[in-house]
Amino acid sequence: MTSTEKYDWSQTRLRVRYAETDQAGIVYHSNYLVWFEVGRVELCRDYGFNYRDLERQEDAIMSVTEARVKYRQPARYDDELIIHTRLAELRSRALKFLYEVRRLPDDALLAEGETAHIMITATGRVRSIPPRYAEMLRQALQESAQPEL
Amino acid sequence: MTSTEKYDWSQTRLRVRYAETDQAGIVYHSNYLVWFEVGRVELCRDYGFNYRDLERQEDAIMSVTEARVKYRQPARYDDELIIHTRLAELRSRALKFLYEVRRLPDDALLAEGETAHIMITATGRVRSIPPRYAEMLRQALQESAQPEL
Amino acid sequence: MTSTEKYDWSQTRLRVRYAETDQAGIVYHSNYLVWFEVGRVELCRDYGFNYRDLERQEDAIMSVTEARVKYRQPARYDDELIIHTRLAELRSRALKFLYEVRRLPDDALLAEGETAHIMITATGRVRSIPPRYAEMLRQALQESAQPEL
Amino acid sequence: MTSTEKYDWSQTRLRVRYAETDQAGIVYHSNYLVWFEVGRVELCRDYGFNYRDLERQEDAIMSVTEARVKYRQPARYDDELIIHTRLAELRSRALKFLYEVRRLPDDALLAEGETAHIMITATGRVRSIPPRYAEMLRQALQESAQPEL
Repeated sequence: MTSTEKYDWSQTRLRVRYAETDQAGIVYHSNYLVWFEVGRVELCRDYGFNYRDLERQEDAIMSVTEARVKYRQPARYDDELIIHTRLAELRSRALKFLYEVRRLPDDALLAEGETAHIMITATGRVRSIPPRYAEMLRQALQESAQPEL
Repeated sequence: MTSTEKYDWSQTRLRVRYAETDQAGIVYHSNYLVWFEVGRVELCRDYGFNYRDLERQEDAIMSVTEARVKYRQPARYDDELIIHTRLAELRSRALKFLYEVRRLPDDALLAEGETAHIMITATGRVRSIPPRYAEMLRQALQESAQPEL
Repeated sequence: MTSTEKYDWSQTRLRVRYAETDQAGIVYHSNYLVWFEVGRVELCRDYGFNYRDLERQEDAIMSVTEARVKYRQPARYDDELIIHTRLAELRSRALKFLYEVRRLPDDALLAEGETAHIMITATGRVRSIPPRYAEMLRQALQESAQPEL
Repeated sequence: MTSTEKYDWSQTRLRVRYAETDQAGIVYHSNYLVWFEVGRVELCRDYGFNYRDLERQEDAIMSVTEARVKYRQPARYDDELIIHTRLAELRSRALKFLYEVRRLPDDALLAEGETAHIMITATGRVRSIPPRYAEMLRQALQESAQPEL
């Protein structure tokens, strides 16, 4: 059983772009943070909302306060990848997501990481997660909780 | 006499970042548009204004309507480059810039290009260039005009 | 009849990433060149080869010699886009592609452009397109030719 | 006394590019990893070598194995920043760097982070740091050591 089978992670697929490689012949390491964001947005979609609407309709931005990546094996040009994302922590004004980047078809773990976020307004003031969205995220948290242990 | 000596071009220097290379061992071609923008902003600074202020204080954005690049020789990691920029056309609501990317110390021409812009508000409505800025840009246009011919 | 119906264009779909936006609230203009490359690679796949194999197995790189983009309407965060790509010119050592970026679901034309390429080796020497690949590209050229006029 | 005065950190200056902002009106968070790399390369230059030469002449790449960033305050378009970098750990085949991103002119701490690296060959095999370079890095480590504690 791989770690991603233990929980209900959101999954989204992408293909490595030429622009994402560097002269070492592998993906430049900052791109994994961009992919994490793609995974995060798809998790939101899986739980019923569009992150775009959160920003537009509620004046609420999930500002990144911390990011961490462990690079296991390099991703390469044209690799097809799955970004696995789960919500690991949910508080009134903050959240934390976990990620795994896996390669198809062999499911090799290329990288894992986490990002922490605080909810702010467009002018940068800390605010609570809008209730309607907090509810949907609570659902995401429950389904990503480890079933036993 | 090189082409950049004929006019009064703005010059700004930058060093190629590892992130800007690709697996062919050269700079990925979209980055030249980012460098053109660096050159454009420095031209504004040379003629007395901060592009940031234009956006903030006047609700005026120089939206890109067209871009063209000719790639002559590849830029490589850690190359020191000079971006030469001149204002080539100035109308009440539109402008055009020309660019040359040259490598130090040999002054080799790596790329040249142009961008066309229209002035819009934050909500996307076309507007005229604010008078105070139009005046400074008129100065830039005059000084970049070919002295004879 | 839209322009993309006249020919047999390759199509690939992508969603705008947050990282691709800028502070004007729209996609930063250099990203269209990255998307064109995504379209180009999918056209290759449609005609039977993986661009990655071309580089790896044949020591042949499609180096960009010229790029041009016309921006019609801004792409925005989370927009779903279709990149339409066709091969417009094929010579022994050079090619030219045309692109259209259209938004779903309204098929609005956001941008169009072209890129010209020359085939080079990893060390930068100009070379001819490997015969096997030239054959597949000839097929792409024929199918993208306008049926009548 | 700020933390950067306690040690001998390398310093390099850069200006935030428009392309580095996102629609929240601040710098997109992955760009800090690119800036860390700019700082790392300048630290190498400060201690007598060009990272480019390390890759070219020694078949040695400082592959990133881990990265961490804490975001304190957002960097914004056109901000002038100083990237402070110091070598925090040096082993036969691995290194660790620390970073601070500070804004000019107020020296506000915008972000801090670290990256861990392993030395590999172009084909991905782990190798030791070439002796000549290890020597220069040892110097960097000594000068970045806290003078007393």
